Amino acid sequence: MMNFTSTIAAISTPPGKGGVAVIRISGDEALSVAEKMFKPKGSLKDLKNAPRRQIWGDILSCGEVIDDGLICYFPAPFSYTGEDVIEISCHGGILITRCVLEAALSCGAALAEAGEFTRRAFTNGKLTLTEAEAIGMLLDAEGMGQIRLGRAASRERLSEKISEIHTALLSLMSSIYARIDYPDEDLGDFTDSEAKDILKSAKMEIEALIATYKVGRAVKAGVKTVIAGRPNVGKSTLYNALTEDESAIVTDIPGTTRDILECSVPVGNIILRISDTAGIRDNVTDKVEAIGVERSKKRIEESELIFTLFNSSEPLCKEDIELIRLQSGSSAAKIAVLTMQDRGVCDEFDKEFAGYENLFDSVIRISARLHPTEAKATVAQVVTSLFEEENITVGTDAIISSANQYASLVKALEHVNSALIAYTSGLTQDIASADVELALSELSMLDGRGVCEELVSDIFSKFCVGK
Amino acid sequence: MMNFTSTIAAISTPPGKGGVAVIRISGDEALSVAEKMFKPKGSLKDLKNAPRRQIWGDILSCGEVIDDGLICYFPAPFSYTGEDVIEISCHGGILITRCVLEAALSCGAALAEAGEFTRRAFTNGKLTLTEAEAIGMLLDAEGMGQIRLGRAASRERLSEKISEIHTALLSLMSSIYARIDYPDEDLGDFTDSEAKDILKSAKMEIEALIATYKVGRAVKAGVKTVIAGRPNVGKSTLYNALTEDESAIVTDIPGTTRDILECSVPVGNIILRISDTAGIRDNVTDKVEAIGVERSKKRIEESELIFTLFNSSEPLCKEDIELIRLQSGSSAAKIAVLTMQDRGVCDEFDKEFAGYENLFDSVIRISARLHPTEAKATVAQVVTSLFEEENITVGTDAIISSANQYASLVKALEHVNSALIAYTSGLTQDIASADVELALSELSMLDGRGVCEELVSDIFSKFCVGK
Repeated sequence: MMNFTSTIAAISTPPGKGGVAVIRISGDEALSVAEKMFKPKGSLKDLKNAPRRQIWGDILSCGEVIDDGLICYFPAPFSYTGEDVIEISCHGGILITRCVLEAALSCGAALAEAGEFTRRAFTNGKLTLTEAEAIGMLLDAEGMGQIRLGRAASRERLSEKISEIHTALLSLMSSIYARIDYPDEDLGDFTDSEAKDILKSAKMEIEALIATYKVGRAVKAGVKTVIAGRPNVGKSTLYNALTEDESAIVTDIPGTTRDILECSVPVGNIILRISDTAGIRDNVTDKVEAIGVERSKKRIEESELIFTLFNSSEPLCKEDIELIRLQSGSSAAKIAVLTMQDRGVCDEFDKEFAGYENLFDSVIRISARLHPTEAKATVAQVVTSLFEEENITVGTDAIISSANQYASLVKALEHVNSALIAYTSGLTQDIASADVELALSELSMLDGRGVCEELVSDIFSKFCVGK
Repeated sequence: MMNFTSTIAAISTPPGKGGVAVIRISGDEALSVAEKMFKPKGSLKDLKNAPRRQIWGDILSCGEVIDDGLICYFPAPFSYTGEDVIEISCHGGILITRCVLEAALSCGAALAEAGEFTRRAFTNGKLTLTEAEAIGMLLDAEGMGQIRLGRAASRERLSEKISEIHTALLSLMSSIYARIDYPDEDLGDFTDSEAKDILKSAKMEIEALIATYKVGRAVKAGVKTVIAGRPNVGKSTLYNALTEDESAIVTDIPGTTRDILECSVPVGNIILRISDTAGIRDNVTDKVEAIGVERSKKRIEESELIFTLFNSSEPLCKEDIELIRLQSGSSAAKIAVLTMQDRGVCDEFDKEFAGYENLFDSVIRISARLHPTEAKATVAQVVTSLFEEENITVGTDAIISSANQYASLVKALEHVNSALIAYTSGLTQDIASADVELALSELSMLDGRGVCEELVSDIFSKFCVGK
């Protein structure tokens, strides 16, 4: 684990022009850096003895007043990082904000690296690794599901749950070691049967957590989605219905709007990452011809959710059947969308389509052009039923959402299973204890207690500077 | 003047993803809005009785916890707007910040318009109009000169100076009215000679302020600059020397980097707005040919500063002379830049160039390729001498920088001059007093005391939402 001795500073608010910007300074020297660059102007002057108070004054750079603003001192350990923290609010101009940061650097602070504040919070025990990851999710959230998953209640729930399993296994392991080391003493610990019960219970708890990964992943990373269908079947209409009331959110998030090849659309708690939206948005009518079968195949292979649209007011055509064939081998969730409900029923379609219906996970009937809100609600319902679980509530239950968490739990489960087998097949206790120890180490990994430097660096490098 | 009754809210930090974002709420209901959407979690719970304290807690939207963060209450009138102000700091994700704002709106706040917080500050007497304009300048600052001009000290200096002139003229006017209304009483006011002295002094002060406009404008709006010269004469080398140690600033400001047709380069206190940088940056060697004489002419006509580069290691050529001819009629400041100093002296060049030297405001010799730092220093010195005045110090003196301020002062000066003429030519006092009244009204305009609604709206509409 890294040892932090320096005092760091960074602009904590987003880059760009705004009304206010916040420069954060953390470390032993935070107060002394602040006192060199900030001169209180009001009645309250003694920064050190006014913790958590917003104090107004001049911000100095090389002895020159460059701005006026507010300063606030959060003494250790009651701060975000657990260290002494100073926050300076200045006018939110791009250059002025930068000048205030540079003033802090010239007064002895070092420029913080990406995620360094949160990393220090983790190192100082203010946050577990799962909580830190949840903050990262909050910052990147594009949908309410991600906010629910990332918000404090949920974060603590996962940490608590892992902590519970960890504590149970730890007490089991100490008991085993005690019996190995002092075989003659009655240490009042677990019987084999009790030990097995502890392991079985841990196994169930871990399995339950692993089972949350599907929904956690769909909420956090989103679901790779393809809207397929022959020309004029209503792909762009469905797309517009899905994005309509979220269009402001969609357009506000950089990277999703400019990159028209993928668009993120929150549907319930889940984020749909709709690929190849260029064609959908531009309503290119010869889409299937243009992209070719090979490309459709590739898109479908990579997707996790496929909406296949059919015009149910006309008989199935050759292209429809080709599309059904294309996706039939995919492991993605498949939703058949029967469009043009307003144009009347086509008995021939119904008859023909019946033969393919079982190839889809769900079949929905919408009229997105006339009733976009209903169409979106229908889609949201079926997406929720496919990607969420009735017994898992996003926002209150412990849910894992990252591949690291998933991998650790799967390994922990293997070790718990080995320990159980060791007990069941009457192997010596030290074999079981070795397995329990490995399971514990995986759980520690998940919670950041026994985590390797590389993983920690990887997680925090994804944060922006100033967090 | 508008009457503010609503409570407004906006995101005050820049748009985009960051570590922290600040949502500001201002108005009579700010505290009640805050209490509906924020639940303190620490020992400090009573927001109302803990002014200016950062209090930690949960942020709620429709009863659901969406984030945790800090809240701070600034009771009226000791706040930015002069009203009750609440600032909520939340995690700086794009969606989460928006959700916190929406929570404030759903609890009764209205969305603030661009500049509405600062406008309320102005209306509530927390800022003069000149100070509000200075804040706008700080937010847009691209160079230290703009920060110096915009910073608190400078802002107050201009307000003070205008206030001084205003007070002197106001006392003169009351005295004139008193004498007109009560001609028989000895009101102990000014003699004609004293009145003339007051007017003369006001005239000088106003003239002095008007004289600061050239530097104020060069600092605030920048100087439209062209770097001209035939191919390979060193235009891109000069450009690189000018931008080099400011390149980070240049690249960080959106709009200047993407729009390669104009680039802002701080040189001393002045911002040079170098146009047509595409050619300069890409080092297009057939630039003069490519753009044609007509386009060169247009660029030169619109510019306020022209650097014309000559290779002093070779005799003047036809193109050089054409460029000299092109700019000779321009009212821009003209700097001849003799480059390639490291390639030795060319007597023929010196002899020929001597005939044109008096067409330039300044002639400098640089070797930007070998000594970029010295080249930039030389340029900074000559730009400063051309656009700044020795007796005006940016950052401490009262300086006007906007066209509105300039126009008001020019009109005020005309009225003061008319009043002086009225006195000198022995006209009745009521004629002089009418002039003084008009001058006062112009000065009030400048300081925002008697300013019209349209101008106020214009000034504040330039602010971003959240300021």
